[in-house]
Amino acid sequence: MNYCSHCGQPLISRIPEGDNRHRFVCDHCDRIHYQNPRIVAGTIPVWEGRILMCRRAIQPRHGYWTLPAGFMENGETTVEAARRETLEEALAGVRIEGLYTIMHVTHIDQVHMFFRASLLDGEFGAGEESLEVRLFAPDDLPWDEMAFPTVQESLSHFIEDSKKEAFPVRVTDIQRRLGQ
Amino acid sequence: MNYCSHCGQPLISRIPEGDNRHRFVCDHCDRIHYQNPRIVAGTIPVWEGRILMCRRAIQPRHGYWTLPAGFMENGETTVEAARRETLEEALAGVRIEGLYTIMHVTHIDQVHMFFRASLLDGEFGAGEESLEVRLFAPDDLPWDEMAFPTVQESLSHFIEDSKKEAFPVRVTDIQRRLGQ
Repeated sequence: MNYCSHCGQPLISRIPEGDNRHRFVCDHCDRIHYQNPRIVAGTIPVWEGRILMCRRAIQPRHGYWTLPAGFMENGETTVEAARRETLEEALAGVRIEGLYTIMHVTHIDQVHMFFRASLLDGEFGAGEESLEVRLFAPDDLPWDEMAFPTVQESLSHFIEDSKKEAFPVRVTDIQRRLGQ
Repeated sequence: MNYCSHCGQPLISRIPEGDNRHRFVCDHCDRIHYQNPRIVAGTIPVWEGRILMCRRAIQPRHGYWTLPAGFMENGETTVEAARRETLEEALAGVRIEGLYTIMHVTHIDQVHMFFRASLLDGEFGAGEESLEVRLFAPDDLPWDEMAFPTVQESLSHFIEDSKKEAFPVRVTDIQRRLGQ
């Protein structure tokens, strides 16, 4: 962040009065430009005991398997964001069953939230950001080709919790992987 | 948003290729400036059956009662944000007991998350953003002087759930109030 998005003058980084963190501040129009974490919302879509996953057609992690998920937009709820991303990436309509995982990915300033979901009619397909979309039996999940730690963690909890048929909301922290 | 925060040139609002929403786009350096909802994290701090609330010393809603809460910062988790805000606004150390409410406030692009919490040692005081900080018995809560709908909603659920001693995570939507 170099310039003020309001008046176009150069920004400086300093601790504003009454604050305790460095912010990007414009001394021309006195605006403070805060930066905050973003929410990624997605689903674990289930159809007849199998889980719908998407193989990514985009970077990062091109070719790896993910759950349908993406950045929440202004004007929508996390539930709406999760449902929209599932429609866009897997061309699948879902009923949201409940919030399941909230995972902090602090090294990239993101909060990932996954919802349990059921396919409405078993229909799905590859959206623009997916190479292919497939249903996986719990025993056949592509553990060695998962795109992101939050996808892997949500699915491992889900498989375990499915055996007990109880799905408590899980709030966890995701650490940076070696090499990232 | 008028100018590119990277290169300082004027922005235009249009739908980028491959997207379906208007974004602020810089045709000089090709950056797209996405805008996303922000998370407000806070606590319902309890000590010996009473609930700690803060009377606001700042706008909006100066003079009204709130739970300690504020914008989540980059680099922290929602749990850390809730604990930090409680320390800053109520000078109170808390142990987080669990996530409780997630409320979508779409008309201001915010997601509010409140955690159940216990005061560590019963110590508290008014931080810089609070006029006073007090413990309220459940029957004495200042319902007519609550600062925000999400505070009111979190507390009404909490009072009801306390009677059953069961606190399921609640995901709800908050509508714009008349006159706002």
